[in-house]
Amino acid sequence: AAKMSSPTETERCIESLIAVFQRYAGKDGNSSKLSKTEFLTFMNRELAAFTKNQKDPGVLDRMMKKLDLNADGQLDFQEFLNLIGGLAIACHESFLKSAHSQKIL
Amino acid sequence: AAKMSSPTETERCIESLIAVFQRYAGKDGNSSKLSKTEFLTFMNRELAAFTKNQKDPGVLDRMMKKLDLNADGQLDFQEFLNLIGGLAIACHESFLKSAHSQKIL
Repeated sequence: AAKMSSPTETERCIESLIAVFQRYAGKDGNSSKLSKTEFLTFMNRELAAFTKNQKDPGVLDRMMKKLDLNADGQLDFQEFLNLIGGLAIACHESFLKSAHSQKIL
Repeated sequence: AAKMSSPTETERCIESLIAVFQRYAGKDGNSSKLSKTEFLTFMNRELAAFTKNQKDPGVLDRMMKKLDLNADGQLDFQEFLNLIGGLAIACHESFLKSAHSQKIL
């Protein structure tokens, strides 16, 4: 049998994404989808730094609508990953901009 | 000023995805894209458990082609996130299947 080694950073990250989705999706109703309430709980607990910075109170409503590609009022795992990806891209771009302005890159 | 608190699991994950991409993309040439060589290094180091399990030696070539949506021979951060998302979805589905067969869900 193969020896189990400790997971890599990427493997830990994939496991975390699944665990976080299941933790919040499991709170009410369909445990394989995030309801609107579960999405709001997720945003306020896991991404509070982002959520608190939004001055427009409608921003989370609009995010939910935009992410909910099949418009069933819930987010499945693929739709949830699009959220994480969008935030990661925004963070990555702001890092690149600040690195450029500091002439790191 | 807001007090800095320790990052949540989701925030750590977003940071990890950016850090891992930059670590591998920075190895040669364009430091904001993964070349084919950098992609192979990433797959062999970070996702060795997956990569070693593939019996077909052409699988990584085909993955790179499929992920490289704009066919420039490199993977940008968005294309890299599609890879992570695809793997996360595959893991999530295999978890759901095994949970169903064990009657956990």
